[in-house]
Amino acid sequence: MGSVPSPPPQPHPLAQLSKDEFCKARDVIVKSHDSSESLFFRSIYLQEPRKEELVPFLEAEHAGTLSDATQRPPRSAFVDYDIVKPDKHQNVRSVVRLDSGEVVSSQHTVDEAYPYFTLAEFAKCEDIILKSDLFKEAMSEFSLPEGFVITVDPWPTGGADGAGEPRYMQGLVFAKDASKKNNDTNHYGFPIPIIPIIDWVTLKVIRVDRLATGGADDGIEPAPRGNAPKKLFRNIRSAEYVPELLDRPLREGLKPLNVVQPEGASFTVQSDGLVEWQNWRFRLGVTPREGAVLHDVCYSNRPVMYRLSYSELTVPYGDPRPPFHRKQAFDFGDGGCGRAANVLELGCDCLGAIHYVSSFIASADGSPTEAKSVVCLHEQDNGILFKHTNFRTGRAVVTRSRELVVQFIATLANYEYVFAFKLDLAGGITLETRATGIVSVVAIDEGKKSNYGNVVSPGVLAQNHQHIFAARIDPAIDSYRQGDTQVVVEESHGAKIDAKTNPHGNLYEVRRSTVAAPTWIDAEPKVNRTLRLENPKKQNEVSGKKVGYKLMAPATQMMMADDDSILAKRAPFAKHNMWVTGHRDGELWAAGEFTNQSRREKGGVSDMVSRGDWFTDDGNSHTADAANGNGHLDPHDSTSGRKSSPVLWPVYGFTHNPRVEDWPVMPVEAYQIHLRPADFFTSNPALDVPSTRNQSSVLVQCCGDVDEQGKTVREILGNGQG
Amino acid sequence: MGSVPSPPPQPHPLAQLSKDEFCKARDVIVKSHDSSESLFFRSIYLQEPRKEELVPFLEAEHAGTLSDATQRPPRSAFVDYDIVKPDKHQNVRSVVRLDSGEVVSSQHTVDEAYPYFTLAEFAKCEDIILKSDLFKEAMSEFSLPEGFVITVDPWPTGGADGAGEPRYMQGLVFAKDASKKNNDTNHYGFPIPIIPIIDWVTLKVIRVDRLATGGADDGIEPAPRGNAPKKLFRNIRSAEYVPELLDRPLREGLKPLNVVQPEGASFTVQSDGLVEWQNWRFRLGVTPREGAVLHDVCYSNRPVMYRLSYSELTVPYGDPRPPFHRKQAFDFGDGGCGRAANVLELGCDCLGAIHYVSSFIASADGSPTEAKSVVCLHEQDNGILFKHTNFRTGRAVVTRSRELVVQFIATLANYEYVFAFKLDLAGGITLETRATGIVSVVAIDEGKKSNYGNVVSPGVLAQNHQHIFAARIDPAIDSYRQGDTQVVVEESHGAKIDAKTNPHGNLYEVRRSTVAAPTWIDAEPKVNRTLRLENPKKQNEVSGKKVGYKLMAPATQMMMADDDSILAKRAPFAKHNMWVTGHRDGELWAAGEFTNQSRREKGGVSDMVSRGDWFTDDGNSHTADAANGNGHLDPHDSTSGRKSSPVLWPVYGFTHNPRVEDWPVMPVEAYQIHLRPADFFTSNPALDVPSTRNQSSVLVQCCGDVDEQGKTVREILGNGQG
Repeated sequence: MGSVPSPPPQPHPLAQLSKDEFCKARDVIVKSHDSSESLFFRSIYLQEPRKEELVPFLEAEHAGTLSDATQRPPRSAFVDYDIVKPDKHQNVRSVVRLDSGEVVSSQHTVDEAYPYFTLAEFAKCEDIILKSDLFKEAMSEFSLPEGFVITVDPWPTGGADGAGEPRYMQGLVFAKDASKKNNDTNHYGFPIPIIPIIDWVTLKVIRVDRLATGGADDGIEPAPRGNAPKKLFRNIRSAEYVPELLDRPLREGLKPLNVVQPEGASFTVQSDGLVEWQNWRFRLGVTPREGAVLHDVCYSNRPVMYRLSYSELTVPYGDPRPPFHRKQAFDFGDGGCGRAANVLELGCDCLGAIHYVSSFIASADGSPTEAKSVVCLHEQDNGILFKHTNFRTGRAVVTRSRELVVQFIATLANYEYVFAFKLDLAGGITLETRATGIVSVVAIDEGKKSNYGNVVSPGVLAQNHQHIFAARIDPAIDSYRQGDTQVVVEESHGAKIDAKTNPHGNLYEVRRSTVAAPTWIDAEPKVNRTLRLENPKKQNEVSGKKVGYKLMAPATQMMMADDDSILAKRAPFAKHNMWVTGHRDGELWAAGEFTNQSRREKGGVSDMVSRGDWFTDDGNSHTADAANGNGHLDPHDSTSGRKSSPVLWPVYGFTHNPRVEDWPVMPVEAYQIHLRPADFFTSNPALDVPSTRNQSSVLVQCCGDVDEQGKTVREILGNGQG
Repeated sequence: MGSVPSPPPQPHPLAQLSKDEFCKARDVIVKSHDSSESLFFRSIYLQEPRKEELVPFLEAEHAGTLSDATQRPPRSAFVDYDIVKPDKHQNVRSVVRLDSGEVVSSQHTVDEAYPYFTLAEFAKCEDIILKSDLFKEAMSEFSLPEGFVITVDPWPTGGADGAGEPRYMQGLVFAKDASKKNNDTNHYGFPIPIIPIIDWVTLKVIRVDRLATGGADDGIEPAPRGNAPKKLFRNIRSAEYVPELLDRPLREGLKPLNVVQPEGASFTVQSDGLVEWQNWRFRLGVTPREGAVLHDVCYSNRPVMYRLSYSELTVPYGDPRPPFHRKQAFDFGDGGCGRAANVLELGCDCLGAIHYVSSFIASADGSPTEAKSVVCLHEQDNGILFKHTNFRTGRAVVTRSRELVVQFIATLANYEYVFAFKLDLAGGITLETRATGIVSVVAIDEGKKSNYGNVVSPGVLAQNHQHIFAARIDPAIDSYRQGDTQVVVEESHGAKIDAKTNPHGNLYEVRRSTVAAPTWIDAEPKVNRTLRLENPKKQNEVSGKKVGYKLMAPATQMMMADDDSILAKRAPFAKHNMWVTGHRDGELWAAGEFTNQSRREKGGVSDMVSRGDWFTDDGNSHTADAANGNGHLDPHDSTSGRKSSPVLWPVYGFTHNPRVEDWPVMPVEAYQIHLRPADFFTSNPALDVPSTRNQSSVLVQCCGDVDEQGKTVREILGNGQG
């Protein structure tokens, strides 16, 4: 009514691209090309500001001094697309500045750095294969039972067998039981022992590999076909997992267990990604490759993490029979866990009061497609947080641990990964990874056993494999500034009896060494090796020690593939439990940006370690911190090194030698990494959590007793009780 | 009306003692002594039947062939008591047969095997010390602030300094702030640097040790007193943890999160300890030393575990300054986690529908005192159990993981341990141990720092220490019979490239070796060392492999105390991650039965390994299975060995170098051991778990949006949705 409308607020530098920004970025790219050029869009998402531009903004934001005069990092979009050409597509990665509409950078991908596959690409695979004459000819070797049809699963082809290989895709071939007229019959139930390979420029099947199907003593080559009659699936057994197709009734007696939050959720989420909960505050991002990303994680307005994400995951298979060495997925680099994130549904993946976050992914024409509800936030109870009972009076003080969970679930063909970030009431952060879904299976002659896996159903071999994950932790321990976070390796060592210093032999020494330069660090539970992230400039007022967080990661087996194998060369990251590297903007990928068909880890953590950065003035001498079993890689390319902030890459995973119980869909295997405050606060930060007695718990009596059966605390004690 | 009443049903051989049985056992013992003898009762509880007597009964029970004619193991009680004598009490451990009222065995404890302390004994400590002149004299060195009073905590005295030491108790001395007129002011807030020692026969303080209070460079001896003025607590800081005494307001905004089970619990409990839930069935026992014990754990009527329990816990402190080497608690052997179990209260320690189990403990006169609600059972949600999304159709099948939790919480003076057994829907069993409570602190001169711990409040040093737990797993893999469960060590090893067997270097080999004789086995995550419990006589119909369970335990640091120290000699169990020993009835204690003031682990796992049992005919040759880094202890006492069933003792724990955040009450540290079926079933046993959509989950919108805010699934979708 006559008042001048205020200009729309500027988006936060870390907010996801709006739909308008997304479209603008696409349009800028389209206009930058001649209209005769055909473009295929892969990804469009926020180009995060450079750390040196963002830090002053964040400092002003947290100091409450943001104003119109504050310098804001420009909003930019990252646009990844191909210029479609008859011989070979040209992949381009551009940065578009959204205010000016300028293309500020444009990188043409060089040969043998092949981009990931988009969902649109994966979706083409089956059709190309089913129509191929080569494939039809290969399939003529097999006869399917009545009512079964062929299905094909798209897979990247793993490490290239030699230099100069064009961009390929492989198809894993299965029969599925179509007689039930249910499209959700298990796609993976009956593997067929051939793998067609598609040249992804011509989109033609160029060959069909035949697979060995023998047992323990049958060697690594496929049996010669000879005049064997067509045969398959003598002994079909249900592989179904959808409830309406199960070969057994659903179990009874599991009564509902509901999480009810009568006053709603304790967290708030703003449309620009700001999340606040119980002294915590962070910005939630979503990227096509990483899924959920946590930026600027603060507790009581003190920074803890600059950026927290999952970086990579490689799954090498241990079956030596060619071409199974090409089964090595990089689920972030070859496909993208954000792109493959499930649409989450209320009541399915979490309980209680849940908020869902959506994002946009690029269609082939660059238009934004909503990726609906791909990340969720909810609270959960995690048992007792602390308890003490005064045995003299019987008075117990007990509080419950509540967690805020940020979760997304990626489906990579047969397999599912559940990724979560959990913040807790005591200042802790947990990264939790769970693996579930359907194990990757191949055909085995019935009645045989294999050293390379386990027979999980007649004719079905689940091969031994590993899942090796890398997370990425870009810390900001009470400061965003370079040099304000150091990494210290802490170990506890027993000491021999010594009359002067250790007369009774119970002493143990806590040894510390500061990580002076990028390196890898293996787990060593025998000496309780623990990493501490510390701010050398801030002292805990009570203990006099540096304020910090400690990082507790499980000691898990690293990649077993021979160091000389392509599988190992593609993923040196998977050979050590922890990497500490020097920060560079945009360096987010443990195995490098281009993993698809890679033959080495280009630009991954091993290269980051090799370039000769340093964290402390000590580190500039490039001497390895070898005393603790840590190692630097050679050669140091000191020409590219510089003083930098440490970024941590915890690597963890599991060796999965499948059980019959993993079929046809496997119960979760979970791994957790914990970040816990260690002298960051001046007492237990959860001391002020109310030890409220839960009013809705009810008593269960045994064997038919009815006294107070099913009564709530409120009914038993009356309303006065807290 | 006229019908002959049926005789009362006989109690199950594994049912806890009824009150009548308890009293009868006590009376039998009282009558067996001359009335002039004064008796002090320590414990009365079920004497479990011998395995060879119980197994035929269990087999008949599970076969459904129990009848009046079935041979039942006799009901017996174990009665532990002292004959009080002026010079030294005689400890006696007797077994009383309840039907005949006979004392069937009676063992007189020999010298230097000192029994644990009962709660009645611990309760006397403070009073004895406060009245002692020696103590009063020592205290005259210190002056307390206005309103503070002295309190004393009873502790066992750790390993005896020399042979022939009488039974002692030590008192840890603190000042507490009594000005607030609240008995629950922190008892441990202000440590006083003296330790009085009581001779437990004369019940007199025999000396008062003075404690060093220096810092990093002050050596290990207490500073000479000299003419220092009385002084203490210059800089008092609140150490309170009870809500009404906190120095800060309780936090706000944590809205209620309730677990609501509208149809009640899914489990049933009978008065004789039988628990049934989702194909699981077991007998719940409670013992004064162990707390909850699970007997005869079956899934779908197939035995899995004969007996599952926690066995021991040692807490050595790493501060070398005498007499801190005597701070080494054995919380099961010196006190007893069942005896120290908290009275659990609805709405405090668990959420949802909860059943509580009570027990009896012996008063000093042998009468039964109810230990009310010391064990609880409830269900909890543990996130996603399995999920698969068919990316072609978008159809997701997701089930939730439900666990049945059997939990008890022991308070050992300052510290709390939460012990749980969790059964899940996929045939898995998890043993979970959580540590919380108040860290043990000593005085430190203000302004100093120490290498032996961390200053958590001015003048208060939390010493470095370790918590090392041993569980006990007595398996019964699809059979209770001796020889039907074997232990196999499985490791995964990478292989070098080889043209014939491993052309691309991705092969890894799964190596197995059967544990032929008792041994210890260290964790080795580098080769994914895993134990499998297998039944050599039963083959999985699908995989052709032996039916089994695998045991996954965390690789944690073992005890650091020098092997030549008393601390290490008392607890060789704490030096290795796993022990496998030959079964003997009643051998339940990793560190031996008598830990209090022990100087070596007598009758513990190291002795069990040394005696020369064997599991397989191979094992009879007594050759060590050294290839896998395992070891036998020498010398084998083959005269006492025999062929036996393996019992497993996983050892795990944590090195606790305290954080300031652990004060004044520490957030839980949790550890889990998993037992998972491995080819025990012929497919995922949880496949039949309904993937029901939870109807009570609600949507949380962001930033004030109201569409569907707070609506439940039912409201959004209508009632038809499953």
